Amino acid sequence: MTFTKPLAQLIGHLERLPGVGPKSAQRLAFHILRMPEDDVRRLAESLVAAREQIRLCEICQNVTAQTRCEICSDSRRDSTLICVVGEPKDIAAMERLNEYRGLYHVLHGLLNPMDGVGPDNLKIRELLSRLSGPIEEIIIATNPTVEGDATALYLGRQIKQLGIKVTRLAHGMPVGGELDYADSATLLSALEYRREL
Amino acid sequence: MTFTKPLAQLIGHLERLPGVGPKSAQRLAFHILRMPEDDVRRLAESLVAAREQIRLCEICQNVTAQTRCEICSDSRRDSTLICVVGEPKDIAAMERLNEYRGLYHVLHGLLNPMDGVGPDNLKIRELLSRLSGPIEEIIIATNPTVEGDATALYLGRQIKQLGIKVTRLAHGMPVGGELDYADSATLLSALEYRREL
Repeated sequence: MTFTKPLAQLIGHLERLPGVGPKSAQRLAFHILRMPEDDVRRLAESLVAAREQIRLCEICQNVTAQTRCEICSDSRRDSTLICVVGEPKDIAAMERLNEYRGLYHVLHGLLNPMDGVGPDNLKIRELLSRLSGPIEEIIIATNPTVEGDATALYLGRQIKQLGIKVTRLAHGMPVGGELDYADSATLLSALEYRREL
Repeated sequence: MTFTKPLAQLIGHLERLPGVGPKSAQRLAFHILRMPEDDVRRLAESLVAAREQIRLCEICQNVTAQTRCEICSDSRRDSTLICVVGEPKDIAAMERLNEYRGLYHVLHGLLNPMDGVGPDNLKIRELLSRLSGPIEEIIIATNPTVEGDATALYLGRQIKQLGIKVTRLAHGMPVGGELDYADSATLLSALEYRREL
């Protein structure tokens, strides 16, 4: 005997989520059984809505519900400055600083030859196609990890060939850490001491 | 700037789940954006289906999609034996033993005067109403915690007054632990050495 079918199915679906083991799937499922029915319906709808409505911004490849994301649509942002990040959540980390006023570009990954992630698997072509306009500086803000360093090096070479200034966030942040987990003070000093590649 | 609206809403809903902090809600949400749309829809449907279809068995109060749960409907089970547990998941722990062939009763909680949980908040009335038929033994399998001990003591007194044999799982299990986390060997020895209250 296991759990009754709808419950077993729910646990099965939850278990497939990252970081959710059998025990937490069970705990989550029993929590859901105790939630008000409307709340469960709202949660279910938000899952489908997010998956259906969210696409990538045609300019910076950030996740958005529009054709262009809020940042690329904002005329007050400095369009001569592009900060290149690995993942959409890294933009949130940068924006929390309330300091950077340029645009972004999301690579959706970092170079990782071991896992078969090459330049063609990242949004690098889309980045390079943005560089024909007037650009003052490209700030590479990939994670200070092996993959992030390799990606920065690769991009630095490509972009310098175009005669554009390329900088990288300073290692003010703990080496081996993730951008998304850095506290704002550390990230701010890393932004301040960015160095030219 | 935070995330685009459907994404922020999804993260908000996920954060309200137990054991899901802001970081894991974010990670889950980005995982969901990368999932095949059909899988997201199936997950969403399973949430609503579980919440809508699951009710309590009219006999043992276990979660079920029917009026009576599979165990209570199974005529091969020994209906003179009732094992009393705190939560539905504890039944799964007992059933994994493949040893116990009686029925169950789920209290849906344990006595906890500090949190205002008294006998009327548990499915105790429903348990006592089952004891008019021929019953050989009631096995109390509440967690070996303060609340579980208090509940066992309370139930033991009530049931013994009716002249019915009451036993409790032996403390073969680590004291202070949870039934749901015990390994089968420990739980099996606890079942074997159950003692009369």
